[in-house]
Amino acid sequence: MAVVPILSDAEAGAEALAVFDDIRTKRQTDYVNNFWRALAADPALLRATWDRLQAVMGPGTLDPLVKEMIYVAVSVANGCSYCIHSHTAAARAKGMTEAQHGELLAVIAMAAQTNALATALQVPVDERFDVKGG
Amino acid sequence: MAVVPILSDAEAGAEALAVFDDIRTKRQTDYVNNFWRALAADPALLRATWDRLQAVMGPGTLDPLVKEMIYVAVSVANGCSYCIHSHTAAARAKGMTEAQHGELLAVIAMAAQTNALATALQVPVDERFDVKGG
Amino acid sequence: MAVVPILSDAEAGAEALAVFDDIRTKRQTDYVNNFWRALAADPALLRATWDRLQAVMGPGTLDPLVKEMIYVAVSVANGCSYCIHSHTAAARAKGMTEAQHGELLAVIAMAAQTNALATALQVPVDERFDVKGG
Amino acid sequence: MAVVPILSDAEAGAEALAVFDDIRTKRQTDYVNNFWRALAADPALLRATWDRLQAVMGPGTLDPLVKEMIYVAVSVANGCSYCIHSHTAAARAKGMTEAQHGELLAVIAMAAQTNALATALQVPVDERFDVKGG
Amino acid sequence: MAVVPILSDAEAGAEALAVFDDIRTKRQTDYVNNFWRALAADPALLRATWDRLQAVMGPGTLDPLVKEMIYVAVSVANGCSYCIHSHTAAARAKGMTEAQHGELLAVIAMAAQTNALATALQVPVDERFDVKGG
Amino acid sequence: MAVVPILSDAEAGAEALAVFDDIRTKRQTDYVNNFWRALAADPALLRATWDRLQAVMGPGTLDPLVKEMIYVAVSVANGCSYCIHSHTAAARAKGMTEAQHGELLAVIAMAAQTNALATALQVPVDERFDVKGG
Repeated sequence: MAVVPILSDAEAGAEALAVFDDIRTKRQTDYVNNFWRALAADPALLRATWDRLQAVMGPGTLDPLVKEMIYVAVSVANGCSYCIHSHTAAARAKGMTEAQHGELLAVIAMAAQTNALATALQVPVDERFDVKGG
Repeated sequence: MAVVPILSDAEAGAEALAVFDDIRTKRQTDYVNNFWRALAADPALLRATWDRLQAVMGPGTLDPLVKEMIYVAVSVANGCSYCIHSHTAAARAKGMTEAQHGELLAVIAMAAQTNALATALQVPVDERFDVKGG
Repeated sequence: MAVVPILSDAEAGAEALAVFDDIRTKRQTDYVNNFWRALAADPALLRATWDRLQAVMGPGTLDPLVKEMIYVAVSVANGCSYCIHSHTAAARAKGMTEAQHGELLAVIAMAAQTNALATALQVPVDERFDVKGG
Repeated sequence: MAVVPILSDAEAGAEALAVFDDIRTKRQTDYVNNFWRALAADPALLRATWDRLQAVMGPGTLDPLVKEMIYVAVSVANGCSYCIHSHTAAARAKGMTEAQHGELLAVIAMAAQTNALATALQVPVDERFDVKGG
Repeated sequence: MAVVPILSDAEAGAEALAVFDDIRTKRQTDYVNNFWRALAADPALLRATWDRLQAVMGPGTLDPLVKEMIYVAVSVANGCSYCIHSHTAAARAKGMTEAQHGELLAVIAMAAQTNALATALQVPVDERFDVKGG
Repeated sequence: MAVVPILSDAEAGAEALAVFDDIRTKRQTDYVNNFWRALAADPALLRATWDRLQAVMGPGTLDPLVKEMIYVAVSVANGCSYCIHSHTAAARAKGMTEAQHGELLAVIAMAAQTNALATALQVPVDERFDVKGG
């Protein structure tokens, strides 16, 4: 199910197709996944999202695989089924091993657990964690 | 504010004190932060949480700093103020640079944004992201 | 899948049927959607929810379409798949254009992004935003 | 408390100051709020966020006040204290009346309530809400 | 901080004061807590919320203390600081012991942890959990 | 769909099988549900999760059914579809009546609603709810 059509190349407009082509070139694949096809009804939003994604996930001080694992972690906490699937696949494509996946899961579960405890107890932040006090 | 007392060493029971001592030894510091002092009213929960945290955050295939950044990412998505403060401080203590923090923030914000879009559009998961179909 | 049966008219009790009839009359349609049929096992909860929905979504100072778009925005942030589908459909029925839908999506994504950043940075609230200080 | 410093004009670098100046000009005020000052440690992220915000919240098919109310709704559902304060203030500055604020609150509360119910019951989406089926 | 004034009895209108009086009578206390005073700017919303709260939390098949603990659990998962404080206090007033509080916390943390894991793994629901298949 | 395989007994390793056997014995059933089979790729995480679950959900001061209902409440607020299905089924197996389920739903919906209102209004916590001030 979806609340918008998943546009095929034939159904997408010229601006959207230009983004699809850019995705194909940058990712070196013919496949354009559903997320972009669902966004294609609004070419400006599609373009802004794709451009920003490249800037954020591109070369920097963090390893590309690390960025994907952080992406998965946020997607899990936000409960985004689509994003969990697509970014877990992307992490695997970037070399995530089964052992690394297991550790990622363990950290996510641990954080969820202590997030819940700290929130349930409404623990006041220690002065030493305040940057302004540093 | 808090919904439980933040126990000092003098107020904590013997079982809780043993965990405090373990924290001091393992972390090579005299400081025991408020999260553990808030949990100290329930020594069994305190012990289980501390033991599990060590197992999860200890040596493995992921870099300790990477684990801390994943922890921060989950804590942000869950909106846990205490955890964001404590684990951002922990990431800094493990060497996170300002540039790395900036990239961490950018990935978290990007994920939050595309999580919202994929959810708003209810994008169906591509067959190729399904492990069972692989 | 569901954790309760989706009651047909034949399976629903008298109190639930009375709400179904009210829904049909007020909405000028024969169709009663699954949400109400799932609630029908608890007629008191069904009645209270339906009555409150009418009071909240009925005539007031905000345009009905604006209310539907706010409803969609909350449902996206809460990750409620059913509600995103039903209220996006309702917004369309109330005249939401494709351009308006695109802007709604863009605002939701922007808010998700800056929500994440403000939370990650734990930005202190400016005095001027505090009503008590005003 | 905060996990990064809130940079004054004197502490901000040239790139960040240029964004501060842009904010002052576009908003016709001398005041730059803490969110932007917290982002100033990463001028590229600051610039990208500010530029995107203007594009999203600028003129379009939705009324500026409607966009602010949608922003508030998402911020509430995401539990972002800072954003709730700043965007409620922005909505007031754009003319939101007390009655409109009351209706906004009522819709947010209603959506939260039915989001919880639909999720708790795991109500299957009606075929007629599926765009692909349309 | 707050985004609305916390109305004193002197500042509240007649309709709001009637609800305050009702709260005092039903709870057998002179104290009206900030939540109701913040809602008082919109007397209709105040009245609807108070009336519904009484209906939901009143006598039924679940013990009043159990209802309060469920309320705390939801408030923790939703990250509502105010609600965690007020409903933990209410649970204590209804007899929640320290041991019960500890178990409540442990269940909340366990659920948060397995929620994260099941979501991260996108575990398909077993047929036997589907009521329609029953 | 899933992001990991759901391991059958034949596919699971020795350590995972030992946990499956333990689940069968403790629950007095032959059936091992998908959650555990999805975790089986990481036997250490599987074991730690199962052991902790037993400790938390085992005998204590709270009734087993109450614990299940709290588990459902957290799972709903976290939007975990799998967990809502499995723990609603578990609550039914422990004797939850339809009337109790209805009250559970009503409390969850009420909490979601007032959580949203208290957050939207940013209501300051009353001094009397602060344990440190007590």
